[in-house]
Amino acid sequence: MIARRVTHPSIQIIPLAGLPEIAPGDDLSRLIAEAVKKQDLRVAEGDLFVVAQKIVSKAEGRIIRLDSIQPSKRAEQWAAEYQKDARVIELVLSEASRIVRMERGVIVAETQHGFVCANAGVDVSNAPEGTAILLPDDADRSARALQTRLEENFGVHVAVIISDSFGRPWREGLVNVALGVAGIAPLVDYRGKRDASGKTLQATVIARADELAAAAELVMGKIDRVPVAIVRGVASREESGSGRDLIRPAATDIFR
Amino acid sequence: MIARRVTHPSIQIIPLAGLPEIAPGDDLSRLIAEAVKKQDLRVAEGDLFVVAQKIVSKAEGRIIRLDSIQPSKRAEQWAAEYQKDARVIELVLSEASRIVRMERGVIVAETQHGFVCANAGVDVSNAPEGTAILLPDDADRSARALQTRLEENFGVHVAVIISDSFGRPWREGLVNVALGVAGIAPLVDYRGKRDASGKTLQATVIARADELAAAAELVMGKIDRVPVAIVRGVASREESGSGRDLIRPAATDIFR
Repeated sequence: MIARRVTHPSIQIIPLAGLPEIAPGDDLSRLIAEAVKKQDLRVAEGDLFVVAQKIVSKAEGRIIRLDSIQPSKRAEQWAAEYQKDARVIELVLSEASRIVRMERGVIVAETQHGFVCANAGVDVSNAPEGTAILLPDDADRSARALQTRLEENFGVHVAVIISDSFGRPWREGLVNVALGVAGIAPLVDYRGKRDASGKTLQATVIARADELAAAAELVMGKIDRVPVAIVRGVASREESGSGRDLIRPAATDIFR
Repeated sequence: MIARRVTHPSIQIIPLAGLPEIAPGDDLSRLIAEAVKKQDLRVAEGDLFVVAQKIVSKAEGRIIRLDSIQPSKRAEQWAAEYQKDARVIELVLSEASRIVRMERGVIVAETQHGFVCANAGVDVSNAPEGTAILLPDDADRSARALQTRLEENFGVHVAVIISDSFGRPWREGLVNVALGVAGIAPLVDYRGKRDASGKTLQATVIARADELAAAAELVMGKIDRVPVAIVRGVASREESGSGRDLIRPAATDIFR
């Protein structure tokens, strides 16, 4: 779903602290609800929960023991050349549906979900010793499940974005983007609208869900265990959408 | 400058309404100060002003009359093939220092400043009839000048980001990024820090200025003439930096 433009008053971004270390099988919605209570927050109609992919993956058990991995020859060679762990490289290659770049020690790959990112989303930071963490199997499904449980809990319409930090070509640094989306339109369409001088705008579709994920990162510490932020009052009950809406189809991608 | 990590409490993003249509020679800092007053806002220490590139360019007179442009043969051919204005295409080609992609009617080019974006930053939307708008000559200089004047006016430390909407490979929609930066560190470096499990983080540098630009877009209407937003309390007096810090050098760019 693509939203027609929405005018916003001020936006507030609130870090949610006090979540414990997450383990497979944990009930994230319950832990989030407890953290909200501990922090004495009132969840309001239209609040958006931005949740770091890492804790979703952990709760869903997307943790792979590296000693269970048998590296291929290709993984061994690459790992030797760039001082990497061959088992991690093997995992990256097996998670990739398409290698976009593999040079100078960097692997950028398309995942089976269609995301293009470093190491096909395989991550060893913030992972238990001797393990690697994979992206959620279906981040939209994860987002929808969280949304349902959080709405039951708080009795208001909320939206959920599962976010991760991605690099970009040509620019330094990572920015957070939206992998999974529930209860909010990920794109805002200004096309057909007129600008201030009365001219029709041509090609302006804004990736609002990615901007919301980026905004939430500003209060989410990589170190301080703040894997959830609430963006206040940005979602409306009529909205829906999927993280897939943010993935450019191969047919219109001039950077394949 | 690269900041070591900063822990944030809640962040507030406030749209600044009531700016008039901007014309060459306008004093942006004065108009912003007047809009702040009209809106009954109090500017606080550490406030960040995110300002749309479009109004900076207009104030600086970066407006080109299209009837002053003599299209080249190459521009004529491309324009004919894709039903574009040959004079605009000529302008795009002359603003480009390097063509990254030129196919299916889309031109992605590196500008003389090093930004890689659609149409080398040349824009006809929200431009006076018969004109096109170019990027600021030096967006960092524009940001610094605005910062100096706003600090004089408000008597507190403020930061400034000049932002523009850029597309990205592989993902749908535009997101706002930082072109010019003053008074805030554009990158936050988590490298060498330990994650929650005590492991050293490897490669996490966050493009905070781009995330701040994206966050500000959430309240900046393309139609409603909200070309400025204030992000409350994110900049500290010790910080500095340049939009150039966000441009990946050719030597380390695997997507050239």
